[in-house]
Amino acid sequence: MSSDGISHAELGLATRNAGMPLEALQWPVTPLGLHYLLIHYDIPAVDPNAFRLLIDGTVGTPRSLSLAELKLRPEVRMPITFECAGNGRALMEPRPVSQPWLVEAVGTGEWTGTPLRPLLEEAGLEPGTAEVAFTGLDRGVEGGVEQDYARSLPVSDALGDDVLLAWGLNGGPLPPQHGAPLRLVVPGWYGMTNVKWLTRITALAEPFTGYQNATGYRLYGEDGVPGEPVTRMRPRSLLRPPGIPDFMTRARRLAAGPVLLEGRAWSGTGAVTRVEVSTDGGASWADAKLGEAGGRWAWRGWSFEWAPGPGDYELCSRATDETGATQGGEPDWNAKGYANNAVQRVPVTVVQP
Amino acid sequence: MSSDGISHAELGLATRNAGMPLEALQWPVTPLGLHYLLIHYDIPAVDPNAFRLLIDGTVGTPRSLSLAELKLRPEVRMPITFECAGNGRALMEPRPVSQPWLVEAVGTGEWTGTPLRPLLEEAGLEPGTAEVAFTGLDRGVEGGVEQDYARSLPVSDALGDDVLLAWGLNGGPLPPQHGAPLRLVVPGWYGMTNVKWLTRITALAEPFTGYQNATGYRLYGEDGVPGEPVTRMRPRSLLRPPGIPDFMTRARRLAAGPVLLEGRAWSGTGAVTRVEVSTDGGASWADAKLGEAGGRWAWRGWSFEWAPGPGDYELCSRATDETGATQGGEPDWNAKGYANNAVQRVPVTVVQP
Repeated sequence: MSSDGISHAELGLATRNAGMPLEALQWPVTPLGLHYLLIHYDIPAVDPNAFRLLIDGTVGTPRSLSLAELKLRPEVRMPITFECAGNGRALMEPRPVSQPWLVEAVGTGEWTGTPLRPLLEEAGLEPGTAEVAFTGLDRGVEGGVEQDYARSLPVSDALGDDVLLAWGLNGGPLPPQHGAPLRLVVPGWYGMTNVKWLTRITALAEPFTGYQNATGYRLYGEDGVPGEPVTRMRPRSLLRPPGIPDFMTRARRLAAGPVLLEGRAWSGTGAVTRVEVSTDGGASWADAKLGEAGGRWAWRGWSFEWAPGPGDYELCSRATDETGATQGGEPDWNAKGYANNAVQRVPVTVVQP
Repeated sequence: MSSDGISHAELGLATRNAGMPLEALQWPVTPLGLHYLLIHYDIPAVDPNAFRLLIDGTVGTPRSLSLAELKLRPEVRMPITFECAGNGRALMEPRPVSQPWLVEAVGTGEWTGTPLRPLLEEAGLEPGTAEVAFTGLDRGVEGGVEQDYARSLPVSDALGDDVLLAWGLNGGPLPPQHGAPLRLVVPGWYGMTNVKWLTRITALAEPFTGYQNATGYRLYGEDGVPGEPVTRMRPRSLLRPPGIPDFMTRARRLAAGPVLLEGRAWSGTGAVTRVEVSTDGGASWADAKLGEAGGRWAWRGWSFEWAPGPGDYELCSRATDETGATQGGEPDWNAKGYANNAVQRVPVTVVQP
């Protein structure tokens, strides 16, 4: 944890792991190359012709499938919003030291793949199967442990309706950095769940003890005790900063007069039912107009008519979902910096046109 | 300038502006979404159907062209390596404060477009035309000056053989973040020359005095006096880090035994004719094997057989071009942090397999 400037190691991560520039909120589906990327280790070189997906563990019929066999199965395509569990980490104080995200670790892709559940049913999960672990082809060292990236789901979540094995993005093939040739996609969950370069699915009678479940993605307190695992995305809203930016500070300059503020909102715990906007840093709020939802698992557009006079403003937006979950003004601090859904703050200077 | 940790403003830039993860050196043409991005202001929303390119200034016949008219012209396609002029800035000491690049601000695209020279010839450059200025649709504030992004070329460079107006990348349409619908591409020059969202080409009798020429992209000394403008890419080589990374530090762990080190090298001042490798931090050097050049303006692959025993090593590579220009061990410091082509340093710990 740190209250100081960003270290060179953190900068190294920020340089590799791309955020989504906020003006990309203009698109309901994020154009390829603007979706956020968090790559734990290296992007592996995978030969799609030699690729196999293994399904094993507590199953009646272990299987090994080629990519061609997978692509013969029923195909679905849907827009799904992803957000990194560490989004907002660098806005926590003291700052947990890891990939130093501000608010840009988000994006919506149109994913193409086949539902996972029928594959698990065909393999025949044994009674007493508790979890399903998913392992990628990417290997590295994390917390001192050399490992292939792997994370599990409770079996009920692995059997969820819209869990996909995906081979396509935005109408084209899956790019290497998004997990080609095959990626697990679990709508509504934070990004670490969507295991890239997926090569093995293992049914387990006991909870998975791999690093990313037992040590990595958990809500730690100050005492260093691993708390609850990170699971579904909390409700969140982002605003496309209006006006024009200063190159260095990204501070916004906007001409006085009518302007339509726009943004998008999402939640993994329920459909977004309300978005509010504040132009005074959260002192007062007014309802935004909700747009059509792009599907159950995609962010929802919203807009808000504003007509400021000259002066300094701080814009915020706040999403609420059907469960009543909403966003607070300050981060819920935890030692590894996960699941921060505090409202975004966009200072704007309005000038005479 | 700073010797301290990276500031929040610098982090904001690092979050928006994506570097190329170094394992992407495995591809001769960088996959879409892995090429570096430096976006000065915001990515503008451009309607390609309403788009016009204006050619004006000291020309006999000013012109206004639609995208459809441009696409009827002769089409060329070639791989071209781009590098940001600020690549390596964050490795200078004291550190110039701006987009804090380490070494990842590079990429090679296969660009599709039409040569610029015939368009300028048809417009009829008047005798005495000194420069040609190129203006984009992106607007922002920089150094206190509100501006559309614009930069000029001396007329002889604007008339260069391989200068393109590009509408395609890697066999597909030009993505928004790379300048859709139209981008200037000037092979061999640092990236700031390749004006994105290009909408105006203006022939000038006098040198262009816009911000990016007069103030921005110049080699400043400690005295704050603008020096020479930044122009062509200096020779540079990058090595794909071998082994596997630590998540946080990106430090490499490699099994002892034979390994093929690979990388790519480029130069805007002449064809790359030699690449050397050091495994001891630059104390001694040996020649790498050069691969085929991917074209005059694309980086050239190279490889080096290595068989280390256990221990700690620092890998470096060094490119030399046909003019004899090469890379030094330390950055040529300048106040804005441009054109740093000091050799990359990749610490590797080799362990018993």
